[in-house]
This record gives sequence, C-alpha cells and structure tokens, in this order.
Amino acid sequence: MDVSPMEPSVLDKIFEPRRIAVIGTSRDRGFFWVRCFLEIGFSGEIFPVNPKEKEVLGLRCYPSVRDIPCEIDFSVIAIPAPKVPDVLRDSAEKGAKLATIFSSGFSETGTREGIELERKIRNIVEEYGIRVLGPNCMGVYIPSRGLSFRPDFPKESGTVGFISQSGGNAIGVVLYGESWGVRFSKVFSYGNGVDLECTELLEYLGWDPETEVVGIYVEGVRDGKKFLSVARRIAQEKPLVVWKGGVTSAGSKAAASHTGALAGSAEIWNAVLKQCNAVAVSSMDEMVDMLKVFTQVPEIRGRRISLISISGGASVVNTDLAEKGGFVVEEFPQDLQEKFRSKIQPVGVSVRNPIDLAGSFYDYEALEYIMEEIKPLIDVLVFDLQIIYPILWRRMREFDYLSTLTKLVIEGCKSYRDDDKVFVVILPVMHYEREWIDVKNKLIAEGVPVFQSTDRAINALAKAYRYYRRLEKLKGNVAR
Amino acid sequence: MDVSPMEPSVLDKIFEPRRIAVIGTSRDRGFFWVRCFLEIGFSGEIFPVNPKEKEVLGLRCYPSVRDIPCEIDFSVIAIPAPKVPDVLRDSAEKGAKLATIFSSGFSETGTREGIELERKIRNIVEEYGIRVLGPNCMGVYIPSRGLSFRPDFPKESGTVGFISQSGGNAIGVVLYGESWGVRFSKVFSYGNGVDLECTELLEYLGWDPETEVVGIYVEGVRDGKKFLSVARRIAQEKPLVVWKGGVTSAGSKAAASHTGALAGSAEIWNAVLKQCNAVAVSSMDEMVDMLKVFTQVPEIRGRRISLISISGGASVVNTDLAEKGGFVVEEFPQDLQEKFRSKIQPVGVSVRNPIDLAGSFYDYEALEYIMEEIKPLIDVLVFDLQIIYPILWRRMREFDYLSTLTKLVIEGCKSYRDDDKVFVVILPVMHYEREWIDVKNKLIAEGVPVFQSTDRAINALAKAYRYYRRLEKLKGNVAR
Repeated sequence: MDVSPMEPSVLDKIFEPRRIAVIGTSRDRGFFWVRCFLEIGFSGEIFPVNPKEKEVLGLRCYPSVRDIPCEIDFSVIAIPAPKVPDVLRDSAEKGAKLATIFSSGFSETGTREGIELERKIRNIVEEYGIRVLGPNCMGVYIPSRGLSFRPDFPKESGTVGFISQSGGNAIGVVLYGESWGVRFSKVFSYGNGVDLECTELLEYLGWDPETEVVGIYVEGVRDGKKFLSVARRIAQEKPLVVWKGGVTSAGSKAAASHTGALAGSAEIWNAVLKQCNAVAVSSMDEMVDMLKVFTQVPEIRGRRISLISISGGASVVNTDLAEKGGFVVEEFPQDLQEKFRSKIQPVGVSVRNPIDLAGSFYDYEALEYIMEEIKPLIDVLVFDLQIIYPILWRRMREFDYLSTLTKLVIEGCKSYRDDDKVFVVILPVMHYEREWIDVKNKLIAEGVPVFQSTDRAINALAKAYRYYRRLEKLKGNVAR
Repeated sequence: MDVSPMEPSVLDKIFEPRRIAVIGTSRDRGFFWVRCFLEIGFSGEIFPVNPKEKEVLGLRCYPSVRDIPCEIDFSVIAIPAPKVPDVLRDSAEKGAKLATIFSSGFSETGTREGIELERKIRNIVEEYGIRVLGPNCMGVYIPSRGLSFRPDFPKESGTVGFISQSGGNAIGVVLYGESWGVRFSKVFSYGNGVDLECTELLEYLGWDPETEVVGIYVEGVRDGKKFLSVARRIAQEKPLVVWKGGVTSAGSKAAASHTGALAGSAEIWNAVLKQCNAVAVSSMDEMVDMLKVFTQVPEIRGRRISLISISGGASVVNTDLAEKGGFVVEEFPQDLQEKFRSKIQPVGVSVRNPIDLAGSFYDYEALEYIMEEIKPLIDVLVFDLQIIYPILWRRMREFDYLSTLTKLVIEGCKSYRDDDKVFVVILPVMHYEREWIDVKNKLIAEGVPVFQSTDRAINALAKAYRYYRRLEKLKGNVAR
C-alpha cells in the first residue's frame, strides 16, 4: 500500500521544523548533523540523543528520544540499522512529522534481515503518518530554513531544487555548483526511498515558489507512469534536468546494491524523458553545466552565434564545436567588417566571425565596440579566455592588465543580458591554476556564466536551446 | 614546385642551431624570442637585430642581419610582412639553414599583396635551400636544445612530439600538458606552412629517437596522399593523435582565414585517419588526455575494469560510463567478496565491483588489500577521488589524513604499473580548488595519471585500447 502523497503545501510545513532530535552513535559520526545545523545557522532547538553522552557541542544530550522534555518536529537518525525502527517509533510518538535515516543496512544489502528492517520502517510510516527520507541517505538541505547535511554547504539560498537518490551525488552537485555560482533552494537525498521519493519530491519542488529549476539524480522510481505524468507537468513550468544512474546492465546492478533500485532500461528512460521534455544528462559535469545555463543565462532564442578568442586555432576549433552543436556561425556583413578593420590594427586579426583578436586582444576599446556592434546580429556570444593566461603572464604582473580585460568581460556580459542575449566565457583550468581560481571566482561573483571548455558550453547551450524550442511547441499545442 | 623533403637526420642538424639571429621591430614584441631562448637556457649565441637598438637584454644589437660578424644558423623573424623577404634572403646569405617567421599578413589575408609576399618567400626557399617555418607561426620548442617560443615553457624534456598549424593551440597543448605531467621532445608551430609543414615534420618526428608519441593539430595538408602514406607508417611505430581543425563548413572557412589552409571535408579526413590507425580527437582536452594515456599509462591489454569510489552514486554513474565506453564491469567471485567483507566493516560498503567504500574509505589497510587482490582479475582500475575532498574537509586539517590516502594511491599506482596494469585517478576540480591543486600536483609529480572526470578518462582509455587492438591486427596482417 502506498501512503497517499501530501499536498505540497502540507509537505512544505513538514520541511520547516523548529525542534530537531539528532540520534547518533558517537560524537564523531552521529553528531555530524548537529554540527551541520549549527554551522548553517539553524535558529530552532536541537536535541542530541545518546545514552553515553551528557553534552554534544555545548548542547544537552538526552539518553533517549522519549526523554526529550517537549514535542519534536524532525528526527535525524544515524545509529545501527537494527535499532532504527524503535527510535523512529519513539520519534513519531514525540510528534515528529519528519525523519531522515542516514543508517544503511536495509534493502540495499539484499539480505532477508535488511529487507525485513525496511518493512518495519514502512509499517511505522503507515501507522503514524511520519514522513521519512531514507534509509541510506543524507537528508535535507534548505539553507533558508537552517537545514543542512554538510557543515560546509553555503548559507546563501538560490533557485535550484535538487533531488538525489545518492547522497554522494547530492553533496557533489551542491559543492560543485557552489564553486560555479549555482545556489540551491532545497536539496533532498532520499536513498532507498522507503517513503518520500523522487515523484512526490518533484511534485513538491514544482509547487515550491522558491524553486525555479529542478535537477534530479535518480536510479529508479517506484511508479514510472506517475513519475512521467508529474515530470511532464513540472517540465512545462520549470526546466527539469534528469541524470539517470544505472542505464547499463552493470550500472543497473550497481544501483540495486546501492539503493535497492530497480533501474529500468536506458531505452525506456530515454523515451520517458523525451516525452516529458526533461533535459537528460549523464554526468555530474553535465548536470552542473545545465543548472548553470538555466540559472545564469537568459532564454536562448536563436542559433546565431559568434566566437571570440585570441588564437586562430581556437577560432577554428570553437567554430567546429559550435556548428556540430547546431549553432550557426554566419560571416558578418562586409561593411561591418570594414568598420571593425578601421578600428583595430588588422595584422593577424580576423573579424569575419569567428573573431580572432590575435595580438590585438589588449585593444579593449575596439573589442568593446565590436561586441556591441555584433550584438543585434547574434543570439549567443562565446568569449574564449583559454590562452589569455599564458599570453598575459607577464602583463598580468607588470601592468595589472587582466583586471581591465576582466572588467570588459563583466560589462559585456551585463550589456548582453540587458538585451536578453547570451554571453558566456570559456576558462579552462589548463595551467596557471592559482591565477585561474582568482579570475574564475571574480567572474562568477559578478554573475558571468563561466564554462570549463567550449565543448561543455556548447553542449549545455544546445540542450537548453532545444528545451526552449520544444517547450514553445508544447505550449503552442496546448493553446490551439 | 615542391622542395624535396630532407632526410630526417639532415633536418635534425638544422633543428640544432648554435647561432640565432632574432630580427624584431621593438624591444617588447620582437625580442620576446630573445627572452624565450635566454629563459630556457640556450647555450649558443644570440644576435638581436634592430637598427634602433644598441642592446637587447644585455646582448649587443645589430642594425641588420648583414652586420652580424659571423655566420648564423637560424633566424627568427618578427617584423612587418613587407620587410620579411629581404631579411630572409639576408639570413640565407649569412648561412642560416632555418628561419621561423612569426609575422602575419601573408596568404591568410586572402589579399593579392599577402599572396605575392608569400610567393616571394617561397622563391627564396627554393633559391637558397633555407628551411622555413611559417609565416604566421610561433616556431620551434626543443627544450633539450634550448629552443623555445615561450619564456614559461618547461626546461625539462619529454617524449611527446607535437606539430601544430596553430600557434595558440601549440602553446595551449604545451602548457596544459605541463600541468598534467606531459613533457615534450619537440614542438613545431608552422602556420601557413610555406615550406616545412605537417607531412615532413611528421616524418621527422617518426624518425626522432627522442619522440615516442606524436600529436598533430592540423587544418589542411598540401598533399593528402603523401600525408596518408607517412601517417600510416608512423602510426605503426608510435601512437599518433590527430586533432583536425576546420571539419565543419564554417570551421573550414575560419581555417582559410587563419592559415590559408584548404581544410577538406570531415568525411575524407575521418576516412584517412581510420586508414592509418591514427587516434582522432576534436578538442584540446581530448588531445591532452590522449597524450597523458600514451605517456603515463601502460598498454591497455583488455577490457576488464574495476571502479573504486566512496559514493554509491559515483559507483553507479562510473559503471555506466565504463560500460558505455566498451569496458566490462564484472562482479568479483563470491569467495573473494566474502574475504573483502571480512576485512572491512561492511555497512554501506559494496565490494561486488564497482567498489563503494562509503564510510570505510579511511580503512586504508583493507583498501590496499582489496586493490592487490583484484589486480589479477582486471586490466584497468579507476580510483575516483571526486568527493574525498568534501568528506575529508575536516579530517584533512585535523589528522592530515589526506597525505595517507595520497600515499596509498601513489603506491597502488606503482604496484599496478609493475604488473603492466592500468591505474588512473579521477580528480575533478569541483570545489576546494586550492587543495585540489596541491593534491593533483602531488599525484602528478609521483607519476600517477590523473583525469578531470570519469567520462574523460574512459574516453581516452577506450580510444587507446582500440588503437592497440587495431595495431595488433595490422601487425598480424603484415606478419602473415
């Protein structure tokens, strides 16, 4: 029997606890969560539970959940699997509406004991109506509500909601995203998904006003048809990016021993994702790239692209990548090219499209002029800084020139955004890595979408472009 | 008319100059090369040439090439295009056997003047037999002979020879490669290729005893059949990696205005590369990944792979990527799994293959044991450190634990190499970037092959595997 899914607004209340019990086996491992809540600044009450401790991180520790002197809203359970059902029942009786179970050793082991223990949890969920994330999961990260499953997650909120069957991939996406300017509204790691799982959480994020883009890492869902119908609806309102794990036969076996998921074949999944206009990705890099595009780049309205670099070779290669990705690199009109040639010293420079600045990359007045003049003619501008580093290695130290180019890029990006045009920067970590970090962070802090390679940028932009075009069609069909 | 290609051993002498003239327009731009030769430690004589200077970087400067008081071997020419032919003739008359022409403004402009100037250069080459790289190129980097076209290129030699029609891509590959442990024997940037170009340089690197792997970035070749026959022969002796620029229609136009190359269609090129068992790549990332595999990884003898990570999600995803790349993830025998389970605390851990270490990633005794035991059963081990960072963030500071894991990885890699097995590490730059640099550099300094993502590692390993299998077949056919 399935617990009927809750109204998203009801679930929302459950995800806003004020009193949290953290039941752990030892200071170091079990009370990791106490530290998470403290570091992110949870403003409610935290009750550590462990019969062997008197105090945890300055908080009074209780021998059992039953000893907590008030009702609680939320239990975080990190004790050996056999003890979990009793503690879950105690939590429910103490009024908890939500529990996350970190412990593993359930159905994912494939053993009779593990499966039986998971069934017990299920029974408690059905008996008490307490909602459970897990077992075998990391839980909830909602920065605006002081909830986290890592002490180093950003305090700042964003607009990306992320649902992950894997705790590791949830951690990876949040930290990786943070490094590249992606911030999150709500992140759920649900592991074996004995109760709350992908479909209901997706329904919730679809409703959630704080969430504008949804990402999913999923190995298997309980009810494929239900998932499809929810995903189809949500993807018409918010971009939906789906990373499916276990698409090969060996990967699917690995998924079974990871979360007990029945992974389903790649073909079925691809068909499902296509039907619901979700954007399918197959790696963490691709997931983060898509979240970047959907949060940092305006809607891509057309396929006309221009590519700027300071190397003829990069020009050629970037053009190949753009055209292979379905974009169009059209030569600029002759009179415009003439204008450009009169502004910039022409030796070694090409202004036909792509634009190869060669030795004139420091002529930023001309560069600014060119960027503005081509804006009406294109939908996307890719500015490749890949070998600015080596060429500027001396200038950087002697003239602090890079700050000027950085400024030009930041202002160019703003100007493009003001006109609803796409402007992205390519900055691969090829060499001069310490300088790379500073420039990347500077650009990201100013809201510039930065990608590690032209391949990755083009791939993500092309996927987003196709998403928007299909959406247009779908909405057109609905309107008719 | 074509200048007949030289015997590689004759060309080799020409690439070992003792007296270099550097003809430049100004201290800043033209004498960049003087600095390059000084920084890399050229031990011969350097003669700067410029009528306006008396001294350049402590070296006496001559008003013209004719004023140099002795014969010269090599001229580096970085002056405006119209003046190049005279200086080239002067150089040849002074005995120079080699010149590199940095100047652009020749056939790549598409103008009558540019084409005529390039024809003049060609005539001088034919008249005097002086060999020319360029125009519109960076020239020669041979660290063992003190030749360089960047002041920041490594002094240390390696075994990779690289030929590039683009100067930017040559710079990119050398610096990017350096960051990831790839070192070079000889690098040539030949631009418009008025004389020396891809085919003859490939012939030379095929012969060169210092070169074990050859990489090429090419936009177009003068004689396709000749290239094919040379490439076919070389690729049987040394791995040959080819990155072809200008494979799309717009990319091919960009190539024409970059180096004046007639790029040829993608179909023809793919057929050519397949015929000669070259490894085709399409980006700088892929080029550097292949150079890494061919210099840092033993020959890949089979498709049996194991994947270690500390996240079930990463296990699933890595398995998918490996299987999609043509590798086989076979479950380990039951008795071996039992042994592993008795060594390692089993909760959350999976030892079936892939191996998910979960919370036991700090049990490095068990980990070492597992790595040794599975070695005979596999051809390739992929060790994914991707979320070791976030999970170790506190341990790193408190226990200096990471140095221990790093040590384990380094020793594991050596042990695998001793048995001719492949061991690679995945270390994406996701977050904690400064720590990432230190760990990456430590691993690379110890000879561990490090990749930025599982996708990229699998792609490069799969391409190398196919290269070796085709080679086996070709050699088999020859033997029969």
